[in-house]
Amino acid sequence: MHKKTITVAGGGPVGTLLAISLARHGYKVGLYEGRPDSRQTSIYQGRSINIALSDRGWTSLEKVGISADIKANAIPMYHRAIHDIDGEISKLSYGKEGDAIWSVSRGGINERLLDIADAEPNITTHFEQRLVNVDFNTASAVFQTAGEHEVTVDADYLFGADGANSKVRRLAHNLPRFSYSQTYMPQSYIELNIPANADGSHKLEKNALHIWPRKDFMLIALPNNDGTFTCTLFLNYSGDPSFEGLRERSDVEAFFESNFPDAMAYLDRPVDVFMEKTASPLFLVQVFPWSFNRKVALIGDAAHAIVPFYGQGMNCGFEDCAELHSLISQYEHDWDEIFPAYENARKPNGDAIAELSKRNFVEMSDLSGDPMFQLRKKIEAKFHAAHPDIWTPLYSMVTFSPEVPYSEALHVGDVQQHIMDQIMQLPEIESDWDEPCVMDQLYKLATARL
Amino acid sequence: MHKKTITVAGGGPVGTLLAISLARHGYKVGLYEGRPDSRQTSIYQGRSINIALSDRGWTSLEKVGISADIKANAIPMYHRAIHDIDGEISKLSYGKEGDAIWSVSRGGINERLLDIADAEPNITTHFEQRLVNVDFNTASAVFQTAGEHEVTVDADYLFGADGANSKVRRLAHNLPRFSYSQTYMPQSYIELNIPANADGSHKLEKNALHIWPRKDFMLIALPNNDGTFTCTLFLNYSGDPSFEGLRERSDVEAFFESNFPDAMAYLDRPVDVFMEKTASPLFLVQVFPWSFNRKVALIGDAAHAIVPFYGQGMNCGFEDCAELHSLISQYEHDWDEIFPAYENARKPNGDAIAELSKRNFVEMSDLSGDPMFQLRKKIEAKFHAAHPDIWTPLYSMVTFSPEVPYSEALHVGDVQQHIMDQIMQLPEIESDWDEPCVMDQLYKLATARL
Repeated sequence: MHKKTITVAGGGPVGTLLAISLARHGYKVGLYEGRPDSRQTSIYQGRSINIALSDRGWTSLEKVGISADIKANAIPMYHRAIHDIDGEISKLSYGKEGDAIWSVSRGGINERLLDIADAEPNITTHFEQRLVNVDFNTASAVFQTAGEHEVTVDADYLFGADGANSKVRRLAHNLPRFSYSQTYMPQSYIELNIPANADGSHKLEKNALHIWPRKDFMLIALPNNDGTFTCTLFLNYSGDPSFEGLRERSDVEAFFESNFPDAMAYLDRPVDVFMEKTASPLFLVQVFPWSFNRKVALIGDAAHAIVPFYGQGMNCGFEDCAELHSLISQYEHDWDEIFPAYENARKPNGDAIAELSKRNFVEMSDLSGDPMFQLRKKIEAKFHAAHPDIWTPLYSMVTFSPEVPYSEALHVGDVQQHIMDQIMQLPEIESDWDEPCVMDQLYKLATARL
Repeated sequence: MHKKTITVAGGGPVGTLLAISLARHGYKVGLYEGRPDSRQTSIYQGRSINIALSDRGWTSLEKVGISADIKANAIPMYHRAIHDIDGEISKLSYGKEGDAIWSVSRGGINERLLDIADAEPNITTHFEQRLVNVDFNTASAVFQTAGEHEVTVDADYLFGADGANSKVRRLAHNLPRFSYSQTYMPQSYIELNIPANADGSHKLEKNALHIWPRKDFMLIALPNNDGTFTCTLFLNYSGDPSFEGLRERSDVEAFFESNFPDAMAYLDRPVDVFMEKTASPLFLVQVFPWSFNRKVALIGDAAHAIVPFYGQGMNCGFEDCAELHSLISQYEHDWDEIFPAYENARKPNGDAIAELSKRNFVEMSDLSGDPMFQLRKKIEAKFHAAHPDIWTPLYSMVTFSPEVPYSEALHVGDVQQHIMDQIMQLPEIESDWDEPCVMDQLYKLATARL
């Protein structure tokens, strides 16, 4: 076997999955994480970060050889539960019957992957070792321990799987011809909580992703296994209303009471939390290249930090790992081939999901509450059911069709949107949408482009 | 008067023009430049950087009150002189009769502006003072002198006019919510030279911008007053052919001989220069915001480094100054109003000229040698002459129409391109382009959009 050594900087879900993949290919892997081991320090207690995993994530885990039992702790969400201002709830399916996105705890899946990594003889894990430098010519790295002691780690290759604020990426800034962009969204966010009922059951429907769409801002809630919901309030950083503008307690109270009256019955001290917390910014990062000197590469959020509005961040990172997993076999461990093939395959997809995730804020916060948008979805779903070979709605391509690359989904989605714009212009579409003539027209337009 | 103090970091053409504008508004200005004073050290000798100035630049200088005599040293270029592979030269006008872009020496215009600044009692200039830090809350800055001595300079406001590699901008990276992108173009460049004839005359037509368009790469030449031409070879950094690929002297010789046979008779040791020089990268920088805490702002290349393919870099920087000049009067020195108005007015234009400058590489290096493209230009020029109120070609909007903001030019240009695509599809357009029916059709399409 190729007993080359690889350093993975970052022991989050993507870094850990990557380490497992590399180890199973026969590499000796050093997995370095700056934070303590959450399995020993309960770092995630009091803060439950939730992630939506979907087919791309599951498929990628399987490709690396992680069995499906990791899904046992995930909660399927079959539809959006849309809470209007009067507390009326409507359902909007994610896909066809049985399609679901899955609410998972970031900490939970991370710990499960770390357990699997610990069982791999080729992996050594190191916590509380903070990356301070990388030599991009040799893949040698310097880590600092909690005691400020510095250790130099030599390896044949190094991966930066160290997240949206990647240190490896920041160090790469000094390399020639490194293209980089960081883009802040107008929105920031805080996390809120809906506690469980006394009997441990959920206060809202468990198998749904709850959305309170209010156009310029929104509240969402994802279920946890302990009966709680993790909620996120997305709101502009400045303007009216905004985190910057809402300073007085009475204004915050009025903001919640008037915009989320039904949720106020469930939320745990939302006004207190709003007053106490500093809102976190949302930003996208895009870079090129993703690999340097055939020695060092970026993966996951380090290569493509996106916004959470499509629920695809971790899915995309897992896909990076699965792609690399395949390429190592395909190119028989020839890293001079693997690195360029990896970045050429994944960069267009990272860019596409970044674009899609940005656009989806509008879909979630505004359109999901719009009857015409819901009608559009209904027409698309009906047509998809009749002609699955001709039409798959964009959301389903992104979420339930791992065989369609993100970049293709983005392109096809744009074509489909143009077609649906024409369909929605048909006179009497609101009353006649279920008539055969609408499907006929859609069929004509959809096949004309072939 | 408002005897507030303003620090301007960067004594290039934009920083110096800004300093003059601020001084004439009554501010006490400290102008700081890291390099030595070129008027005393002949820093530009042996390296003549040329810039194309056009109507936006001239208009902006006039707005700040710089008289037109600065134009005396500029050389008007009325058309592109396109050198094909066989040495045939064709002319392609820039605009209508008399329209010109102007070849100026960067060093020359900088020195002229510095002379004007020296005559302003409100300006003190400081050379060889390198910016090391900025306090974005107070506008206080630290400069390091040649002797490594550090001086702290307090002021009411500070402008970063310190160019594409702006230190002020790099320091702003640490501020919250700072969106930033740097994008490398595939091309890099080196400068070459065509010497004057023995009698001081030009070896090629003086009043033209010479282009050797070769699709993926190109050579250009701008005239100087001393009879020389400053030439730039734009070539991909990697691939075939490229700076990276052309390593052997014999390959470089063959590259020049086969691609620029006619220019080889004029160029001064191009192969030697190619072998000796390191190619410079081309990159764009876009950021937001352009101002911080109503105390510090970016201007010129520091705010919007672009690529040189539209000849608009310095024009855009001068326009920034002219806009600010107007806003100071409009808002009566209220900088809480001026800063946001400045960045809101200029940011969309900086983005638009960045996009236009990127696109124009293809126009210069590929299309300018394409007969169909030249025909398209001819049709547009004819229609513009007949209906100047309905149609101004994109190049003329950008270059000769300072009353049209870049952002509007970009938008209108896209609409016009769509129309011209249809015109160029007309059967027999190559033979019939001069027929009335073509103008009629163009009129129909152009007015339909109104």
